[in-house]
Amino acid sequence: MTVKQLSLPQLADACRRSGVGQVGLWREPVQEHGVAETAKLVRDAGLTVTTLCRGGFLTATDPEERAAALADNRRAVEEAATLGTDTLVLVSGGLPPGSKDLRAARERIADALAELAPYAGAHGVRLAIEPLHPMYAADRCVVSTLAQALDLAERFPAHQVGVTVDTYHVWWDDQAPAQIARAGAAGRIHAFQLADWTTPLPEGVLNGRGQIGDGAIDLREWKGHVEAAGYTGPVEVEVFNEGLWARDGREVLAETADRYHSAFL
Amino acid sequence: MTVKQLSLPQLADACRRSGVGQVGLWREPVQEHGVAETAKLVRDAGLTVTTLCRGGFLTATDPEERAAALADNRRAVEEAATLGTDTLVLVSGGLPPGSKDLRAARERIADALAELAPYAGAHGVRLAIEPLHPMYAADRCVVSTLAQALDLAERFPAHQVGVTVDTYHVWWDDQAPAQIARAGAAGRIHAFQLADWTTPLPEGVLNGRGQIGDGAIDLREWKGHVEAAGYTGPVEVEVFNEGLWARDGREVLAETADRYHSAFL
Repeated sequence: MTVKQLSLPQLADACRRSGVGQVGLWREPVQEHGVAETAKLVRDAGLTVTTLCRGGFLTATDPEERAAALADNRRAVEEAATLGTDTLVLVSGGLPPGSKDLRAARERIADALAELAPYAGAHGVRLAIEPLHPMYAADRCVVSTLAQALDLAERFPAHQVGVTVDTYHVWWDDQAPAQIARAGAAGRIHAFQLADWTTPLPEGVLNGRGQIGDGAIDLREWKGHVEAAGYTGPVEVEVFNEGLWARDGREVLAETADRYHSAFL
Repeated sequence: MTVKQLSLPQLADACRRSGVGQVGLWREPVQEHGVAETAKLVRDAGLTVTTLCRGGFLTATDPEERAAALADNRRAVEEAATLGTDTLVLVSGGLPPGSKDLRAARERIADALAELAPYAGAHGVRLAIEPLHPMYAADRCVVSTLAQALDLAERFPAHQVGVTVDTYHVWWDDQAPAQIARAGAAGRIHAFQLADWTTPLPEGVLNGRGQIGDGAIDLREWKGHVEAAGYTGPVEVEVFNEGLWARDGREVLAETADRYHSAFL
């Protein structure tokens, strides 16, 4: 998503040029290109897929909507397996229209996981619940903290359900380092993503994430937290930013790799 | 602030017409009208002042800036005393330019409170630390949760330092009800404010608060939490909303009173 202006073939090519050997993919461009075709494309390019984003949106009360969401998540699991990644990121979904009940919405996620977790496990795919920043609690994700995500995940085996740690969503939370330790001790950090926090936030607050190093987050410290918790998996850079999307994608990918290296090496 | 389009004399008049006997004031219009003059105006109108908003902005590292902030907060305490309110709301301030250290910024607030709390106490004024929504952590308020606000407040006597509970800022937080109980047990709920959560958020995320009943927050439940914690003080409606500000202020005040009554009575 950081370079969503690139087609998948362009992305594979740009990754090779920038020395990036692993890539996180989103479902929409994968479906457009074809799931099997994408799997072949990345394999031929020598890339591995870190995670597939995203399943989730499991908070509907309407039975038909709910069944459709579950079916869509089973498809997402299958897509992840086809792409050869072991991790499907889940964004839980917001409050249904007219509802003010965050607790009930969170409980419906647990109900949905009870169906999806074994299905994912059978496909060799781990579900990674991603808490989103509390500013999305109403309309996008009722799971706002790592503690809430782990409360849900821990009802299931770690090889079926864990969490995604994204600096953009958790950086403000003084409880998050302890929750990262909790997640790591149980082998439940299934994905780690970086974006920086910049202000002012744009209207709708979706596409104003900061490029590595441009914002207020001590990214080195957060990387240290997940490493201290035993995480050895890939580090994804996931920046939704209109400014980056308006630029040449190859240039943005190269810049991102540079920023990553100067932030951590 | 909900009807900031009204001058203070217009506000006093509109409160009388709407049967509102208590009002929260902000420092800027009070200073413009004159502090003593405002005190006389509200007294003559039979109004009492619930809180003065706002002191704070105590996170600067620069010594001169820091001294200026402390002096300004002492003035705010004096203004509150002159207006006859016992409560000064504090918004802590964001990260200084270039800093990524939320912990250090929070500790500087504690240092500042060590100077300001006794000064406030001597003037019969309680400081009410207001946690703001985590989306303001970088640029406005490094205190993002009631737990953090209470960790700061509890270093001082309750008659000097407590917290402000504002539904807009805490509604997403599943730990907030327990923290309200903690605050109430210690007599530290010094202010309670209502605004609703509506989306999409506007650019800058400052002036998109929802009128009572328009959003995702179960306001009745939150009012129940503070009441169960022993709070018997005033309930302020504090809605920053460009749409409300563009309308006739008297009409907005009457609407707000109506909304309040239909939400709770």
